[in-house]
Amino acid sequence: MTYCLGILLPAGLVLTSDSRSNAGVDQIAQVRKMTLVTAGERVIVILSSGNLATTQAVVTTLREAAGTGDLGYDLHTAPTMFEAAKMVGAKLREIVDRDGRYVEPYGDVGASFLVGGQIGGEAPRLFQVYSAGNFIEASDRSPFLQIGETKYGKPILDRALTADMTLDQAAKLTLLSFDATMRSNLSVGLPIDMLRYEANSFSTANFVSFDRGNDYWNELRREYSDGLFAVVSRLPPPPPA
Amino acid sequence: MTYCLGILLPAGLVLTSDSRSNAGVDQIAQVRKMTLVTAGERVIVILSSGNLATTQAVVTTLREAAGTGDLGYDLHTAPTMFEAAKMVGAKLREIVDRDGRYVEPYGDVGASFLVGGQIGGEAPRLFQVYSAGNFIEASDRSPFLQIGETKYGKPILDRALTADMTLDQAAKLTLLSFDATMRSNLSVGLPIDMLRYEANSFSTANFVSFDRGNDYWNELRREYSDGLFAVVSRLPPPPPA
Repeated sequence: MTYCLGILLPAGLVLTSDSRSNAGVDQIAQVRKMTLVTAGERVIVILSSGNLATTQAVVTTLREAAGTGDLGYDLHTAPTMFEAAKMVGAKLREIVDRDGRYVEPYGDVGASFLVGGQIGGEAPRLFQVYSAGNFIEASDRSPFLQIGETKYGKPILDRALTADMTLDQAAKLTLLSFDATMRSNLSVGLPIDMLRYEANSFSTANFVSFDRGNDYWNELRREYSDGLFAVVSRLPPPPPA
Repeated sequence: MTYCLGILLPAGLVLTSDSRSNAGVDQIAQVRKMTLVTAGERVIVILSSGNLATTQAVVTTLREAAGTGDLGYDLHTAPTMFEAAKMVGAKLREIVDRDGRYVEPYGDVGASFLVGGQIGGEAPRLFQVYSAGNFIEASDRSPFLQIGETKYGKPILDRALTADMTLDQAAKLTLLSFDATMRSNLSVGLPIDMLRYEANSFSTANFVSFDRGNDYWNELRREYSDGLFAVVSRLPPPPPA
Protein backbone atom coordinates (compact mmCIF):
# COMPACT_ATOMS: atom_id res chain seq x y z
CA MET A 1 0.00 0.00 0.00
CA THR A 2 0.84 3.65 -0.10
CA TYR A 3 -0.45 6.91 1.25
CA CYS A 4 -0.20 10.13 -0.75
CA LEU A 5 -1.92 13.39 0.11
CA GLY A 6 -2.24 16.63 -1.81
CA ILE A 7 -3.62 19.85 -0.32
CA LEU A 8 -4.56 22.86 -2.43
CA LEU A 9 -4.70 26.26 -0.73
CA PRO A 10 -4.58 29.87 -1.94
CA ALA A 11 -1.11 29.91 -0.37
CA GLY A 12 0.05 27.00 -2.56
CA LEU A 13 0.31 23.24 -2.35
CA VAL A 14 1.42 20.69 0.24
CA LEU A 15 2.26 17.41 -1.53
CA THR A 16 3.31 14.40 0.53
CA SER A 17 4.03 10.71 0.05
CA ASP A 18 5.16 7.78 2.17
CA SER A 19 7.94 5.41 1.04
CA ARG A 20 6.83 1.84 1.67
CA SER A 21 6.46 -0.65 -1.12
CA ASN A 22 5.29 -4.12 -0.19
CA ALA A 23 4.21 -7.34 -1.79
CA GLY A 24 3.07 -9.37 1.20
CA VAL A 25 4.63 -8.90 4.62
CA ASP A 26 8.12 -10.19 3.78
CA GLN A 27 8.91 -8.23 0.65
CA ILE A 28 9.23 -4.66 1.79
CA ALA A 29 11.25 -1.90 0.21
CA GLN A 30 11.62 1.86 0.32
CA VAL A 31 10.74 3.72 -2.83
CA ARG A 32 10.31 7.38 -3.66
CA LYS A 33 6.77 8.07 -4.81
CA MET A 34 7.20 11.76 -5.62
CA THR A 35 8.48 12.91 -9.00
CA LEU A 36 9.30 16.52 -9.84
CA VAL A 37 9.30 17.95 -13.36
CA THR A 38 10.43 21.56 -13.49
CA ALA A 39 11.32 24.01 -16.26
CA GLY A 40 11.16 27.81 -16.11
CA GLU A 41 7.73 28.88 -14.82
CA ARG A 42 6.60 25.28 -14.50
CA VAL A 43 6.50 22.96 -11.49
CA ILE A 44 4.74 19.61 -11.97
CA VAL A 45 4.68 17.09 -9.13
CA ILE A 46 3.45 13.51 -9.57
CA LEU A 47 2.63 11.30 -6.55
CA SER A 48 2.15 7.59 -7.29
CA SER A 49 0.16 4.71 -5.81
CA GLY A 50 -0.51 1.17 -7.02
CA ASN A 51 1.47 -1.39 -9.00
CA LEU A 52 5.11 -0.28 -8.71
CA ALA A 53 6.11 -1.49 -12.20
CA THR A 54 3.19 0.46 -13.65
CA THR A 55 3.87 3.67 -11.73
CA GLN A 56 7.59 3.55 -12.51
CA ALA A 57 6.88 2.93 -16.20
CA VAL A 58 4.49 5.90 -16.32
CA VAL A 59 6.79 8.27 -14.45
CA THR A 60 10.01 7.22 -16.18
CA THR A 61 8.65 7.49 -19.70
CA LEU A 62 7.06 10.86 -18.91
CA ARG A 63 10.36 12.15 -17.52
CA GLU A 64 12.14 10.93 -20.62
CA ALA A 65 9.54 12.54 -22.88
CA ALA A 66 9.83 15.92 -21.13
CA GLY A 67 11.40 18.45 -23.50
CA THR A 68 11.36 16.14 -26.54
CA GLY A 69 8.17 17.58 -28.04
CA ASP A 70 6.58 14.11 -27.98
CA LEU A 71 3.00 14.96 -28.85
CA GLY A 72 0.61 14.42 -25.94
CA TYR A 73 3.34 13.30 -23.50
CA ASP A 74 5.73 16.24 -23.15
CA LEU A 75 5.14 17.78 -19.72
CA HIS A 76 7.42 20.69 -20.67
CA THR A 77 4.93 21.78 -23.32
CA ALA A 78 1.66 21.10 -21.48
CA PRO A 79 -0.07 24.51 -21.62
CA THR A 80 -2.04 23.94 -18.38
CA MET A 81 -2.02 21.62 -15.35
CA PHE A 82 -5.22 20.13 -16.77
CA GLU A 83 -3.27 19.06 -19.84
CA ALA A 84 -0.46 17.72 -17.64
CA ALA A 85 -2.96 15.55 -15.74
CA LYS A 86 -4.34 14.36 -19.08
CA MET A 87 -0.82 13.31 -20.13
CA VAL A 88 -0.39 11.26 -16.96
CA GLY A 89 -3.77 9.58 -17.54
CA ALA A 90 -2.97 8.90 -21.21
CA LYS A 91 0.42 7.40 -20.35
CA LEU A 92 -1.18 5.25 -17.65
CA ARG A 93 -3.70 3.90 -20.17
CA GLU A 94 -0.89 3.15 -22.63
CA ILE A 95 1.08 1.17 -20.02
CA VAL A 96 -1.99 -0.72 -18.76
CA ASP A 97 -3.01 -1.56 -22.35
CA ARG A 98 0.49 -2.90 -22.97
CA ASP A 99 1.11 -4.77 -19.68
CA GLY A 100 -2.39 -5.59 -18.40
CA ARG A 101 -2.93 -9.07 -19.81
CA TYR A 102 0.57 -10.22 -18.79
CA VAL A 103 0.29 -8.93 -15.24
CA GLU A 104 -3.31 -9.98 -14.56
CA PRO A 105 -2.50 -13.58 -13.51
CA TYR A 106 -0.21 -12.20 -10.76
CA GLY A 107 -2.18 -9.24 -9.46
CA ASP A 108 -3.54 -5.79 -10.18
CA VAL A 109 -1.74 -3.79 -12.87
CA GLY A 110 -3.57 -0.60 -11.85
CA ALA A 111 -2.19 2.65 -10.46
CA SER A 112 -3.41 6.09 -9.51
CA PHE A 113 -1.72 9.46 -9.22
CA LEU A 114 -1.94 12.91 -7.73
CA VAL A 115 -0.72 15.58 -10.13
CA GLY A 116 -0.16 18.99 -8.59
CA GLY A 117 1.77 22.09 -9.46
CA GLN A 118 1.71 25.36 -11.31
CA ILE A 119 2.30 26.46 -14.88
CA GLY A 120 2.95 30.16 -15.56
CA GLY A 121 -0.29 32.05 -16.20
CA GLU A 122 -2.39 29.74 -13.99
CA ALA A 123 -2.85 29.47 -10.23
CA PRO A 124 -1.59 26.24 -8.59
CA ARG A 125 -3.86 23.27 -9.33
CA LEU A 126 -4.22 19.71 -8.06
CA PHE A 127 -5.66 16.62 -9.78
CA GLN A 128 -6.31 12.98 -8.95
CA VAL A 129 -5.83 10.54 -11.84
CA TYR A 130 -7.83 7.33 -11.39
CA SER A 131 -6.78 3.84 -12.52
CA ALA A 132 -9.04 4.36 -15.52
CA GLY A 133 -6.93 7.35 -16.63
CA ASN A 134 -9.72 9.88 -16.05
CA PHE A 135 -9.26 12.52 -13.37
CA ILE A 136 -10.82 15.06 -11.00
CA GLU A 137 -9.61 18.42 -9.71
CA ALA A 138 -9.40 19.76 -6.16
CA SER A 139 -11.11 23.07 -5.31
CA ASP A 140 -11.74 25.30 -2.30
CA ARG A 141 -14.75 23.09 -1.48
CA SER A 142 -12.67 19.90 -1.52
CA PRO A 143 -9.15 21.17 -0.91
CA PHE A 144 -7.46 17.79 -0.41
CA LEU A 145 -7.10 14.62 -2.47
CA GLN A 146 -5.75 11.26 -1.29
CA ILE A 147 -4.63 8.03 -2.96
CA GLY A 148 -3.68 4.65 -1.46
CA GLU A 149 -4.64 3.86 2.13
CA THR A 150 -6.84 6.91 2.61
CA LYS A 151 -9.26 6.19 5.46
CA TYR A 152 -7.19 6.33 8.65
CA GLY A 153 -5.71 9.71 7.73
CA LYS A 154 -8.97 11.33 6.63
CA PRO A 155 -10.72 12.20 9.95
CA ILE A 156 -8.14 14.77 11.07
CA LEU A 157 -8.35 16.47 7.67
CA ASP A 158 -12.16 16.46 7.67
CA ARG A 159 -12.13 17.97 11.14
CA ALA A 160 -9.36 20.52 11.02
CA LEU A 161 -8.33 21.47 7.49
CA THR A 162 -9.68 24.81 6.27
CA ALA A 163 -9.15 26.59 2.96
CA ASP A 164 -7.56 29.64 4.60
CA MET A 165 -4.67 27.80 6.25
CA THR A 166 -1.02 28.61 5.75
CA LEU A 167 1.20 26.00 4.12
CA ASP A 168 2.88 25.34 7.47
CA GLN A 169 -0.44 24.70 9.23
CA ALA A 170 -1.49 22.35 6.45
CA ALA A 171 1.92 20.66 6.65
CA LYS A 172 1.36 19.92 10.36
CA LEU A 173 -2.04 18.39 9.65
CA THR A 174 -0.47 16.40 6.81
CA LEU A 175 2.12 14.84 9.12
CA LEU A 176 -0.56 14.03 11.72
CA SER A 177 -2.64 12.42 8.98
CA PHE A 178 0.36 10.29 7.99
CA ASP A 179 1.04 9.40 11.62
CA ALA A 180 -2.55 8.23 12.09
CA THR A 181 -2.27 6.09 8.96
CA MET A 182 1.03 4.52 9.95
CA ARG A 183 -0.18 3.70 13.46
CA SER A 184 -3.13 1.77 12.03
CA ASN A 185 -1.64 0.26 8.87
CA LEU A 186 1.72 -1.49 8.46
CA SER A 187 1.78 -1.02 4.69
CA VAL A 188 2.44 2.71 4.95
CA GLY A 189 5.91 3.68 6.19
CA LEU A 190 8.66 6.24 6.67
CA PRO A 191 10.38 8.25 5.32
CA ILE A 192 7.72 10.82 4.46
CA ASP A 193 8.58 13.12 1.55
CA MET A 194 6.93 16.53 1.72
CA LEU A 195 7.02 19.45 -0.67
CA ARG A 196 5.62 22.80 0.40
CA TYR A 197 5.09 24.72 -2.82
CA GLU A 198 4.43 28.43 -2.39
CA ALA A 199 2.11 29.86 -5.04
CA ASN A 200 3.94 31.76 -7.83
CA SER A 201 7.36 30.81 -6.47
CA PHE A 202 8.05 28.18 -9.18
CA SER A 203 10.49 26.72 -6.66
CA THR A 204 10.73 23.17 -5.30
CA ALA A 205 13.35 24.13 -2.72
CA ASN A 206 11.13 23.52 0.32
CA PHE A 207 11.31 19.73 0.10
CA VAL A 208 11.82 17.81 3.37
CA SER A 209 12.01 14.10 4.26
CA PHE A 210 11.00 12.88 7.70
CA ASP A 211 12.51 9.61 8.88
CA ARG A 212 12.58 7.71 12.15
CA GLY A 213 15.42 9.72 13.67
CA ASN A 214 13.96 13.11 12.75
CA ASP A 215 13.60 15.22 15.91
CA TYR A 216 10.70 17.28 14.61
CA TRP A 217 8.73 14.20 13.57
CA ASN A 218 9.19 12.51 16.95
CA GLU A 219 8.36 15.66 18.89
CA LEU A 220 5.28 16.36 16.78
CA ARG A 221 3.88 12.88 17.47
CA ARG A 222 4.55 13.11 21.19
CA GLU A 223 3.18 16.65 21.64
CA TYR A 224 0.09 15.87 19.60
CA SER A 225 -0.69 12.70 21.53
CA ASP A 226 -0.17 14.49 24.86
CA GLY A 227 -2.30 17.41 23.72
CA LEU A 228 -5.08 15.16 22.45
CA PHE A 229 -5.07 13.19 25.68
CA ALA A 230 -5.37 16.42 27.67
CA VAL A 231 -8.28 17.61 25.51
CA VAL A 232 -10.13 14.32 25.99
CA SER A 233 -9.45 14.36 29.74
CA ARG A 234 -10.94 17.85 30.05
CA LEU A 235 -14.16 16.87 28.26
CA PRO A 236 -17.02 16.18 30.67
CA PRO A 237 -18.07 12.51 30.95
CA PRO A 238 -21.19 11.40 29.07
CA PRO A 239 -24.33 11.79 31.19
CA PRO A 240 -25.60 8.62 32.89
CA ALA A 241 -28.89 7.06 31.83
CA MET B 1 -22.98 0.14 6.57
CA THR B 2 -22.74 0.17 10.31
CA TYR B 3 -20.26 0.98 13.02
CA CYS B 4 -20.16 -0.97 16.28
CA LEU B 5 -17.42 -0.74 18.88
CA GLY B 6 -16.76 -2.80 22.00
CA ILE B 7 -14.17 -1.87 24.63
CA LEU B 8 -13.06 -4.29 27.36
CA LEU B 9 -11.52 -2.81 30.50
CA PRO B 10 -10.94 -4.07 34.03
CA ALA B 11 -13.68 -1.60 34.97
CA GLY B 12 -16.17 -3.27 32.62
CA LEU B 13 -17.40 -2.84 29.07
CA VAL B 14 -18.42 0.04 26.81
CA LEU B 15 -20.60 -1.29 23.98
CA THR B 16 -21.83 1.08 21.29
CA SER B 17 -23.66 0.96 17.98
CA ASP B 18 -24.91 3.42 15.36
CA SER B 19 -28.43 3.22 13.91
CA ARG B 20 -28.23 3.63 10.16
CA SER B 21 -29.39 0.93 7.78
CA ASN B 22 -29.04 1.62 4.09
CA ALA B 23 -29.37 -0.10 0.77
CA GLY B 24 -28.06 2.51 -1.63
CA VAL B 25 -28.38 6.21 -0.91
CA ASP B 26 -32.17 6.45 -1.15
CA GLN B 27 -33.25 3.58 1.10
CA ILE B 28 -32.24 4.67 4.57
CA ALA B 29 -33.78 3.61 7.85
CA GLN B 30 -33.02 3.69 11.56
CA VAL B 31 -32.58 0.33 13.24
CA ARG B 32 -31.39 -0.70 16.67
CA LYS B 33 -28.27 -2.83 16.42
CA MET B 34 -27.85 -3.61 20.11
CA THR B 35 -29.66 -6.54 21.72
CA LEU B 36 -29.64 -7.24 25.46
CA VAL B 37 -30.24 -10.67 26.99
CA THR B 38 -30.31 -10.60 30.77
CA ALA B 39 -31.23 -13.09 33.50
CA GLY B 40 -29.98 -13.12 37.09
CA GLU B 41 -26.17 -12.89 37.11
CA ARG B 42 -26.05 -12.77 33.32
CA VAL B 43 -25.75 -9.84 30.93
CA ILE B 44 -25.19 -10.68 27.25
CA VAL B 45 -25.05 -7.88 24.69
CA ILE B 46 -25.05 -8.50 20.93
CA LEU B 47 -24.05 -5.78 18.46
CA SER B 48 -24.85 -6.51 14.80
CA SER B 49 -23.41 -5.54 11.41
CA GLY B 50 -24.13 -6.76 7.88
CA ASN B 51 -27.22 -8.01 6.05
CA LEU B 52 -30.17 -6.75 8.12
CA ALA B 53 -32.40 -9.75 7.40
CA THR B 54 -29.59 -12.05 8.54
CA THR B 55 -28.77 -10.13 11.72
CA GLN B 56 -32.44 -9.81 12.67
CA ALA B 57 -33.00 -13.55 12.04
CA VAL B 58 -30.01 -14.44 14.23
CA VAL B 59 -30.93 -12.09 17.05
CA THR B 60 -34.68 -12.78 17.02
CA THR B 61 -34.35 -16.56 17.07
CA LEU B 62 -31.71 -16.38 19.82
CA ARG B 63 -34.00 -14.14 21.91
CA GLU B 64 -36.86 -16.56 21.38
CA ALA B 65 -34.66 -19.53 22.31
CA ALA B 66 -33.50 -17.89 25.55
CA GLY B 67 -34.92 -19.82 28.52
CA THR B 68 -36.36 -22.65 26.43
CA GLY B 69 -33.48 -25.05 27.02
CA ASP B 70 -32.95 -25.32 23.23
CA LEU B 71 -29.64 -27.18 23.09
CA GLY B 72 -26.79 -25.06 21.75
CA TYR B 73 -28.91 -21.92 21.34
CA ASP B 74 -30.21 -21.01 24.82
CA LEU B 75 -28.26 -17.94 25.96
CA HIS B 76 -29.81 -18.31 29.44
CA THR B 77 -27.98 -21.59 29.92
CA ALA B 78 -24.63 -20.73 28.27
CA PRO B 79 -22.12 -21.48 31.06
CA THR B 80 -19.58 -18.92 29.82
CA MET B 81 -19.40 -15.92 27.46
CA PHE B 82 -17.25 -18.11 25.21
CA GLU B 83 -20.21 -20.48 24.87
CA ALA B 84 -22.54 -17.52 24.26
CA ALA B 85 -20.31 -16.33 21.40
CA LYS B 86 -20.33 -19.89 20.04
CA MET B 87 -24.14 -19.87 20.04
CA VAL B 88 -24.21 -16.62 18.05
CA GLY B 89 -21.73 -18.08 15.54
CA ALA B 90 -23.70 -21.33 15.25
CA LYS B 91 -26.99 -19.51 14.72
CA LEU B 92 -25.35 -17.29 12.10
CA ARG B 93 -24.12 -20.37 10.22
CA GLU B 94 -27.61 -21.90 10.37
CA ILE B 95 -29.23 -18.76 8.91
CA VAL B 96 -26.58 -18.37 6.19
CA ASP B 97 -26.89 -22.06 5.26
CA ARG B 98 -30.66 -21.62 4.98
CA ASP B 99 -30.82 -18.21 3.21
CA GLY B 100 -27.50 -17.94 1.39
CA ARG B 101 -28.36 -19.33 -2.03
CA TYR B 102 -31.61 -17.34 -2.20
CA VAL B 103 -29.98 -14.05 -1.21
CA GLU B 104 -26.78 -14.37 -3.24
CA PRO B 105 -28.24 -13.02 -6.53
CA TYR B 106 -29.20 -9.80 -4.69
CA GLY B 107 -26.20 -9.20 -2.46
CA ASP B 108 -24.18 -10.37 0.50
CA VAL B 109 -26.03 -12.53 3.04
CA GLY B 110 -23.17 -12.19 5.56
CA ALA B 111 -23.14 -10.59 8.99
CA SER B 112 -20.79 -10.14 11.92
CA PHE B 113 -21.32 -9.50 15.61
CA LEU B 114 -19.74 -8.26 18.79
CA VAL B 115 -20.78 -10.32 21.79
CA GLY B 116 -19.93 -8.80 25.16
CA GLY B 117 -21.09 -9.20 28.71
CA GLN B 118 -20.62 -11.11 31.91
CA ILE B 119 -21.87 -14.41 33.28
CA GLY B 120 -21.63 -15.00 37.04
CA GLY B 121 -18.31 -16.62 37.98
CA GLU B 122 -16.41 -15.00 35.10
CA ALA B 123 -15.00 -11.52 34.52
CA PRO B 124 -16.59 -9.47 31.70
CA ARG B 125 -15.55 -10.72 28.26
CA LEU B 126 -15.84 -9.48 24.69
CA PHE B 127 -15.87 -11.41 21.40
CA GLN B 128 -16.05 -10.67 17.69
CA VAL B 129 -17.98 -13.22 15.62
CA TYR B 130 -16.90 -13.24 11.96
CA SER B 131 -19.16 -13.90 8.95
CA ALA B 132 -17.78 -17.45 8.96
CA GLY B 133 -19.19 -18.01 12.47
CA ASN B 134 -15.77 -18.35 14.09
CA PHE B 135 -14.71 -15.74 16.63
CA ILE B 136 -11.90 -14.00 18.52
CA GLU B 137 -11.70 -12.53 22.03
CA ALA B 138 -10.53 -9.12 23.22
CA SER B 139 -7.79 -8.89 25.86
CA ASP B 140 -5.75 -6.27 27.68
CA ARG B 141 -3.38 -6.26 24.69
CA SER B 142 -6.18 -5.61 22.21
CA PRO B 143 -8.89 -4.06 24.37
CA PHE B 144 -11.23 -2.98 21.58
CA LEU B 145 -13.04 -4.73 18.75
CA GLN B 146 -14.89 -3.11 15.85
CA ILE B 147 -17.29 -4.26 13.14
CA GLY B 148 -18.70 -2.45 10.09
CA GLU B 149 -17.03 0.75 8.89
CA THR B 150 -14.00 0.46 11.19
CA LYS B 151 -11.19 2.53 9.68
CA TYR B 152 -12.15 6.18 10.25
CA GLY B 153 -12.82 5.60 13.95
CA LYS B 154 -9.69 3.58 14.65
CA PRO B 155 -6.92 6.23 14.82
CA ILE B 156 -8.24 7.94 17.96
CA LEU B 157 -8.53 4.56 19.70
CA ASP B 158 -5.04 3.48 18.62
CA ARG B 159 -3.67 6.78 19.90
CA ALA B 160 -5.53 7.35 23.14
CA LEU B 161 -7.20 4.21 24.51
CA THR B 162 -5.37 2.55 27.39
CA ALA B 163 -6.28 -0.53 29.39
CA ASP B 164 -6.43 1.37 32.70
CA MET B 165 -9.15 3.83 31.64
CA THR B 166 -12.41 4.35 33.45
CA LEU B 167 -15.64 3.51 31.66
CA ASP B 168 -16.42 7.23 31.33
CA GLN B 169 -13.05 7.99 29.73
CA ALA B 170 -13.53 5.11 27.30
CA ALA B 171 -17.08 6.33 26.63
CA LYS B 172 -15.74 9.76 25.60
CA LEU B 173 -13.24 8.17 23.20
CA THR B 174 -16.04 5.97 21.87
CA LEU B 175 -18.19 8.97 20.98
CA LEU B 176 -15.24 10.74 19.34
CA SER B 177 -14.54 7.57 17.35
CA PHE B 178 -18.17 7.55 16.18
CA ASP B 179 -18.03 11.25 15.35
CA ALA B 180 -14.92 10.73 13.20
CA THR B 181 -16.67 7.87 11.38
CA MET B 182 -19.86 9.81 10.75
CA ARG B 183 -18.00 12.87 9.46
CA SER B 184 -16.22 10.72 6.85
CA ASN B 185 -18.91 8.18 5.94
CA LEU B 186 -22.59 8.80 5.23
CA SER B 187 -23.56 5.17 5.87
CA VAL B 188 -23.06 5.49 9.63
CA GLY B 189 -25.63 7.61 11.45
CA LEU B 190 -27.30 8.77 14.66
CA PRO B 191 -28.68 7.91 17.12
CA ILE B 192 -25.77 6.24 18.88
CA ASP B 193 -26.74 3.61 21.48
CA MET B 194 -24.21 3.17 24.29
CA LEU B 195 -24.16 0.79 27.22
CA ARG B 196 -21.63 1.31 29.97
CA TYR B 197 -21.51 -1.99 31.82
CA GLU B 198 -19.75 -1.89 35.18
CA ALA B 199 -17.97 -5.16 36.04
CA ASN B 200 -19.91 -7.38 38.49
CA SER B 201 -22.95 -5.08 38.46
CA PHE B 202 -25.07 -7.38 36.25
CA SER B 203 -27.00 -4.22 35.42
CA THR B 204 -27.82 -2.72 32.02
CA ALA B 205 -29.23 0.45 33.56
CA ASN B 206 -26.51 2.76 32.21
CA PHE B 207 -27.78 2.75 28.63
CA VAL B 208 -27.89 6.09 26.79
CA SER B 209 -28.85 7.13 23.25
CA PHE B 210 -27.28 10.19 21.62
CA ASP B 211 -29.25 11.86 18.86
CA ARG B 212 -28.95 15.09 16.89
CA GLY B 213 -30.56 17.26 19.55
CA ASN B 214 -28.52 15.86 22.43
CA ASP B 215 -26.73 18.72 24.22
CA TYR B 216 -23.85 16.57 25.46
CA TRP B 217 -23.19 15.14 22.00
CA ASN B 218 -23.15 18.56 20.35
CA GLU B 219 -20.96 20.08 23.04
CA LEU B 220 -18.53 17.15 22.96
CA ARG B 221 -18.03 17.54 19.22
CA ARG B 222 -17.53 21.29 19.43
CA GLU B 223 -15.18 21.21 22.43
CA TYR B 224 -13.12 18.41 20.92
CA SER B 225 -12.74 20.14 17.57
CA ASP B 226 -11.80 23.43 19.27
CA GLY B 227 -9.33 21.62 21.55
CA LEU B 228 -7.77 19.70 18.67
CA PHE B 229 -7.43 22.89 16.63
CA ALA B 230 -5.71 24.59 19.56
CA VAL B 231 -3.30 21.67 19.99
CA VAL B 232 -2.39 21.72 16.30
CA SER B 233 -1.96 25.51 16.35
CA ARG B 234 0.46 25.27 19.26
CA LEU B 235 2.66 22.68 17.52
CA PRO B 236 5.75 24.22 15.93
CA PRO B 237 5.78 24.32 12.10
CA PRO B 238 7.81 21.67 10.25
CA PRO B 239 11.39 22.83 9.63
CA PRO B 240 12.12 24.21 6.16
CA ALA B 241 14.43 22.35 3.81
